[in-house]
Amino acid sequence: MVAPVPSDSLVARALASDSAAMARLMTRAEAGSPECRPALAQIYAKAGRAHVIGITGVPGSGKSTLVSTLTVKLRRSGKRVGIIAVDPSSPYSGGSIMGDRIRMSELVGDEGIFIRSMATHGAHGGMARASLEAVDVLDAAGFDYVIIETVGVGQAEVEIARAAHTVVVVSAPGLGDDIQAIKAGILEIADIHAVSKCDRSDANRTVSDLKTMLAMGMSLASGGAWQSPVVPTSSAKGEGFEQLIECLDRHGQLMRHSDAGRERVRRIAEFRMLKTAEDLLHQRFLEARQGTLVAVSAQLSDRRISPYQAAERLLNGINLQGSP
Amino acid sequence: MVAPVPSDSLVARALASDSAAMARLMTRAEAGSPECRPALAQIYAKAGRAHVIGITGVPGSGKSTLVSTLTVKLRRSGKRVGIIAVDPSSPYSGGSIMGDRIRMSELVGDEGIFIRSMATHGAHGGMARASLEAVDVLDAAGFDYVIIETVGVGQAEVEIARAAHTVVVVSAPGLGDDIQAIKAGILEIADIHAVSKCDRSDANRTVSDLKTMLAMGMSLASGGAWQSPVVPTSSAKGEGFEQLIECLDRHGQLMRHSDAGRERVRRIAEFRMLKTAEDLLHQRFLEARQGTLVAVSAQLSDRRISPYQAAERLLNGINLQGSP
Repeated sequence: MVAPVPSDSLVARALASDSAAMARLMTRAEAGSPECRPALAQIYAKAGRAHVIGITGVPGSGKSTLVSTLTVKLRRSGKRVGIIAVDPSSPYSGGSIMGDRIRMSELVGDEGIFIRSMATHGAHGGMARASLEAVDVLDAAGFDYVIIETVGVGQAEVEIARAAHTVVVVSAPGLGDDIQAIKAGILEIADIHAVSKCDRSDANRTVSDLKTMLAMGMSLASGGAWQSPVVPTSSAKGEGFEQLIECLDRHGQLMRHSDAGRERVRRIAEFRMLKTAEDLLHQRFLEARQGTLVAVSAQLSDRRISPYQAAERLLNGINLQGSP
Repeated sequence: MVAPVPSDSLVARALASDSAAMARLMTRAEAGSPECRPALAQIYAKAGRAHVIGITGVPGSGKSTLVSTLTVKLRRSGKRVGIIAVDPSSPYSGGSIMGDRIRMSELVGDEGIFIRSMATHGAHGGMARASLEAVDVLDAAGFDYVIIETVGVGQAEVEIARAAHTVVVVSAPGLGDDIQAIKAGILEIADIHAVSKCDRSDANRTVSDLKTMLAMGMSLASGGAWQSPVVPTSSAKGEGFEQLIECLDRHGQLMRHSDAGRERVRRIAEFRMLKTAEDLLHQRFLEARQGTLVAVSAQLSDRRISPYQAAERLLNGINLQGSP
């Protein structure tokens, strides 16, 4: 199904962990142009060994600091760590917010670490598809852990974190009511709860609240064989990370060697199929906009047809075009 | 294209502003079952008169309080106001977070107001499609203003707010750094900037920062004929809402009677076509999962085909099935 990889190609260099080649493939994945699909298919075929970890939390939860500290700790055991940060985008700045990454200065120059911020330029960026293709690049290049970090607010953003073998939800003490309300919506996707800022006196309350919630039966993310642990951490003091890594590895092993894990891998594959199909749909929608679809969109705009009728024509019209 | 509406039907009762009928249609839109499509098509054909206002802001921006106060003020001029609140969902509570709505108790029992919270049960809820169908119901029932309120974090959530004639972005003084960073990403979609909590002494700074930003040329949402105004408001003191309503009406007039407005209506129609097509794609993906797609998803899961190849098969397979 997949063509062999020429030894001097971009793909071959990315597979050999050439940073520039990996970065270029990720840029092409973000652009989403059809020409990069054969390369990404070659990468996909080589991936599948890394432990992919989704780390999410509401704004202010300290998740970026936790990711930075976790990465430093994982590096000390010789493991290679890739980070894909899915940040809020800003069309006018044209880039992602990198403030948190500055704290990682001690990691700069370490070839066992690769960090990439994914921006979502405009409304339809194929954010999920591109982010998971970037994960593939790191996975295929032999990184042991690939962390997908997303803000834990927003349907699309939470979905991406869930497309991982292990999901860590970061909670912090002392957040405002509006943030707490949003937090409630993501707790149930956690395989592991990490509580950040546990050097603060009010962190005990956050830990005990989570434990109470779990005791009431709200931990279902990994199926019956797994009880989601609550891990108190302090990035300031460097505490709790041994336990966090132990939990990550234990959950990673479970996912690798259980039916629940195989089912999860299958679900992730289905998610990618659907997100890629949505992206193709959108690309062809944009292509068709200048042609046959102008009449359909005008009829819809004038309310002579319904959104469902227009959508059927879009789906059917796209198919009649054939595909490369 | 659209069948006539029998006088005793659910649609006829919704068009006559029967609250129970409107609520039932919205519930059916949320469920997304094919049986409700003829009714929603009839509703869509009758809609198109309301001024649809998207109101968004980061958590803690005070947007729900602003929406409540604005609604009270609009009611005093005799206008009917519908609110579609797109809230973070929680699969385990099965409902939306209604806390903010409690503040609207003075509005309860007023038939000129209809409030609906849209929940997104699970990852693929067709949130945009269903929310905009709920807007149609209120629009077709003759509500003068329909407000779509969404949290201003998350690609999907921001997209929904943008599918309005006029977008209001709510900013507040005194938010944390993480929130400020996210806020930056939504400012450029504003037709109108509302600053909340202007009874606070630090609100002047928020107002002047926004004005500086706009002076630097960052107001492009409505095209050249419109300068996005910055409106200071205080829900606590009830101040600033006359100016906000004046700006809303002025922008609504511009959208109704300009090429930029007609272009915007066309873009909203295209967005709906695409979101509805995505939703149909997902529904048929779920239907096909038990049949022909099992083999495709297994091949993808085993990395024998790429996500693009799987996506092509999904798009093509769907078409071969035909559609109801």
